Amino acid sequence: MLEQELTQLLGADALVIHPDDRVRYEKGYRYGDGRAAAIVRPRTVHDVSALMRYAREAGHSLLPQGAHTGLVGAATPGAGGKHIVVSLELLREVTIDPVGRTAVCGAGVLLSALNAAAAEHGLTLPIDLGADPSIGGMAAANAGGARLTRYGDMRRQTLGLQVVLADEDGTILSDMRGLRKNNVGLDLKQMLIGTGCAGGIITAVEVELQPVVTQAATALVVPRSVDRIGTVLAGMERRLGPFLTACEGMSANAIAAALDHHPALPRPFASIPPFCLLVEASSSIPMDDGLDMETMLANSLMEFLEGEDAPLSDVIIGRGTDFWRLRHAISDGLKASGKVIGMDIAVRRSDIAAVRQALTSRVNARFPALRICDFGHVGDGGLHFNLVAPSDDPAAGAIDEDLVRSFVYDTVVREFGGSFSAEHGIGPANVHFLERYADVKGQALSRAIFEVLDPVGILRR
Amino acid sequence: MLEQELTQLLGADALVIHPDDRVRYEKGYRYGDGRAAAIVRPRTVHDVSALMRYAREAGHSLLPQGAHTGLVGAATPGAGGKHIVVSLELLREVTIDPVGRTAVCGAGVLLSALNAAAAEHGLTLPIDLGADPSIGGMAAANAGGARLTRYGDMRRQTLGLQVVLADEDGTILSDMRGLRKNNVGLDLKQMLIGTGCAGGIITAVEVELQPVVTQAATALVVPRSVDRIGTVLAGMERRLGPFLTACEGMSANAIAAALDHHPALPRPFASIPPFCLLVEASSSIPMDDGLDMETMLANSLMEFLEGEDAPLSDVIIGRGTDFWRLRHAISDGLKASGKVIGMDIAVRRSDIAAVRQALTSRVNARFPALRICDFGHVGDGGLHFNLVAPSDDPAAGAIDEDLVRSFVYDTVVREFGGSFSAEHGIGPANVHFLERYADVKGQALSRAIFEVLDPVGILRR
Repeated sequence: MLEQELTQLLGADALVIHPDDRVRYEKGYRYGDGRAAAIVRPRTVHDVSALMRYAREAGHSLLPQGAHTGLVGAATPGAGGKHIVVSLELLREVTIDPVGRTAVCGAGVLLSALNAAAAEHGLTLPIDLGADPSIGGMAAANAGGARLTRYGDMRRQTLGLQVVLADEDGTILSDMRGLRKNNVGLDLKQMLIGTGCAGGIITAVEVELQPVVTQAATALVVPRSVDRIGTVLAGMERRLGPFLTACEGMSANAIAAALDHHPALPRPFASIPPFCLLVEASSSIPMDDGLDMETMLANSLMEFLEGEDAPLSDVIIGRGTDFWRLRHAISDGLKASGKVIGMDIAVRRSDIAAVRQALTSRVNARFPALRICDFGHVGDGGLHFNLVAPSDDPAAGAIDEDLVRSFVYDTVVREFGGSFSAEHGIGPANVHFLERYADVKGQALSRAIFEVLDPVGILRR
Repeated sequence: MLEQELTQLLGADALVIHPDDRVRYEKGYRYGDGRAAAIVRPRTVHDVSALMRYAREAGHSLLPQGAHTGLVGAATPGAGGKHIVVSLELLREVTIDPVGRTAVCGAGVLLSALNAAAAEHGLTLPIDLGADPSIGGMAAANAGGARLTRYGDMRRQTLGLQVVLADEDGTILSDMRGLRKNNVGLDLKQMLIGTGCAGGIITAVEVELQPVVTQAATALVVPRSVDRIGTVLAGMERRLGPFLTACEGMSANAIAAALDHHPALPRPFASIPPFCLLVEASSSIPMDDGLDMETMLANSLMEFLEGEDAPLSDVIIGRGTDFWRLRHAISDGLKASGKVIGMDIAVRRSDIAAVRQALTSRVNARFPALRICDFGHVGDGGLHFNLVAPSDDPAAGAIDEDLVRSFVYDTVVREFGGSFSAEHGIGPANVHFLERYADVKGQALSRAIFEVLDPVGILRR
C-alpha cells in the first residue's frame, strides 16, 4: 500500500526494496540498526516537495538521509518501522563558480565529489573529516572537523540553502544566490544548519570555497605538562597566524592503541609521552613564493624548547602525512582494543587542561576498569574523551554506558560550562542528554519554533 | 507618570531627561529624528530584565540602542513618541581571555574600547568599520565592514550572547561559555544576530579575537575594464591566500568627490581612472619572520600588467594609510557635493561588473541629473551604489528618492538575485523594501517566529 503510493508519486525506480540494498540506509555508522517503513530516493527537489505533501496528508514521518555517515544515529530509522527514509543521494549536481569562489551542490553530493570538481579550479571546501559525508548532511549537522580552528564550521562556509518546508504546500524556499552579505532580517537558513533537518529538508547547499593547500608541514609537540598547552598554542597563533591549520591532542593510550592495531605505522617516539599535540602549518601560497611551512612551523616552536622550565620537552617535525595517519588510526585502534564509549565534548579553550585533569582523576577513581583514551581538536577546545572497556575484561564491558556518560558530562557541562556534543550533533544516541542539560526556557523556545516550522511533526522523530 | 515609574524601577540617575542630553539618543546618524517616550540607561542585565517585565505589564514598547551609529534608523525612535529608548551604553565591562582568544563584552562596549583592551594581549576583533559602534549593536546588525573578505561578519566572530527575552519573566538567556563548538540543536543566538534585537535585547556578547595585524601594504589597481576585476581578484586570492584582507572598489566620481572635499589628500593619479580597486595585503606575522606584505602584494599583481591585453593598466603600491584615507574620505566628499541617495547592495561576486554596467546605463538614461558615485566592498560582491543630486541642480534634488531606490533595487534583486541591504540591515528607512522583495512564505515564517519570541510585541517597532 505505502510502496504503491510512493511508486505512484515518485516512480518505481525511486524505491529501495531488496533487503541487501536496504542495509546501508537502515544501519547506522556507529549506532542504530532500524527498520524503515520505506526507503525512497527522490531525483529532484520537486519530488521532495511532492513527498512532503504526501507525508502530511497521509500522516507519515520522513527521515532525510545524506551519505549516512553521522555518529549519533540522527539519520538512522528507529526499530519501530515508522520512518520513510528519504535518501538525498541522487541530488548530486555540482556547479562551481571559480570567480565567485562558490559551489552550488545538490544535498547528496559527496564531500569528495565536490572537492574533485573544485580542485580543477584550485579550490576546495576546507572541512576535513574522517568520513566522506554529503554536503547536505554536513549542513544539517554543522560539520566541524580537524581544521575548524582555521576555517570555521559548516555554518561559516554556507552561503545559501534550498529547503523543502514541512508546510502544507511542501514549499521550496531557496536562497542560492551566492551572496556573502544579505542582512534583511531573520536569516532562515541559520535555523536549518545544525538542526538535522528538523525544520525542513535541505535539498541543495551553496558553499564558499577556499584556495587549495599547496604545502603543509606537521609536528608532534610534547608539552612538559598538559597545562602548558595554552601558552604554546597562543604563541604559535601569534607566529603562524592563518597558517596554523590544526592543533590536535593525543593521549598516550590513544597513540598506543593506534600503534598496536597498525604495526606498519612509523613510531615517532622512543617512549610514548603522556600527551602530545599534532600541529599542522599549511598554506595555499606555494613554496616558490619564498614561504616555507616547515621552517615557519619549526621557528614557531623553538622558543618553547629553550630553558630549564621550557613548556615543551620535545618537538618532532615531519613532512608528509605520517603524523596524520597516526592520528586517523586512533578510532580503529580503540575499536580493536575493546568496547568504546565515545564522547565528543568541548569546553572554553583555556579550560582544556583543567577539564582533562578533572575527568581523568574522577574516571580513574570511579571506573578504574575503563581505559581513558582521549584525543581530539584541542585547538578549538574540543576533546573526544573516549573510554575503552578492554576486550579481556568482562567486568569493564558490563559497566553501564549511560552512567559513565552522565558522570563525565556532569563535570563537563555543569562545572565547566562545556558541551556534551561539540560537533557530532544530536540524535537518538544522545538526545536524552539534551533534556538533562539544556536550559529549560531555551528548550521551550526551540520547541515552539520547530512547531512553527513543522506544525504536524512530519520531520520530528 | 512614566518617568516616575522608571525612576522607581531603575533609579533616578538611569533616566536621560535634559533636552540637550537627549539629542544623541533621538537623532539618527543618517536618518531619523524622533522623540522617545523616555530614555533609560540600565546598569545591569537585571535592570534590563526588570524593564522588560515592566514594559510588558504596562504595554510599552522598548527600543534597544547601542552607540547609535546605525545607518538605517533601526535604533532611532519614531516621531510618535511611543518608544522607551533603552541605551545599553553603561554595560561596558570587558574581560579578555588571551589563551582562549576570546572577549566577553557588555553590549555597550565600544569597538574601540574592546580593541584597546585586546591590544594589550596582541589581539583584536577584526571587523573594520567607519564608525565606532557598540559590540551589542554590531551583533544586532551583523556588522560586516571592509575586511569581511578575510575574517567574515559579526556572526562569524560571535561565540555567545546574553539576551533578555521578551517573555513575561524577562528571562535572561546566556550562552557565554566561550565554546567554539556546541552542536545541540537549534542555536538560538543565530536568531538574535542580524535581526536588530527583534527577538530579545542583547546585553552581552562573547567574541573570538584574532592576532593583531603587524604589517600591511595597499595598492591602487586600475583594471582595463571593470569586467576584468574577477580574474584579477581570483588570481590575487591564489597568490595571497589569507593575506588578502580587503578589496574595495572606487568609481571616478567617488574619488573626485573625496579629493574635492579634502584637498590635502595625496593625489595618486595624473588623471582619475573610471574605476579602480584599493587592495590590501596584511598579516599578523611580523616582517622579521621573512614575510613582506609589500613584496607579496606587488608580486601578486605583476602578472596582470603583462602583455597587450593585460587585465590591468596601472598599479600603484603604497605603504601606510594614504589610500585608506582616500577611501574613507568618500562618504564625506559625497555629502559635501549634494544630496546623497545611499544604497548598500550586494550580488554574486562574479556579477559585480554586470550589475554595475546594467545600473549605470539605466540610471544614466532614466535619471540623467543624478551623478553615480559608487564604491564599496567588491571583494564580497558588495557595492555602495550611491547617487548624488548635485547641490547646484534643484531639479535633481527634487527627484523622488524612493522611486530611484526601487528602480535600482528592482534590477539588483529581481534580475541579479542580489540584496538591497548587504550590511546596513533593516530599519524604518528601508523596511518597506523588505515587503517589496522578500519571499512571501519566508516572511510569514519570520513573523511567526518573532511572535514566538516576542508574543506581545514589546520589541516590535
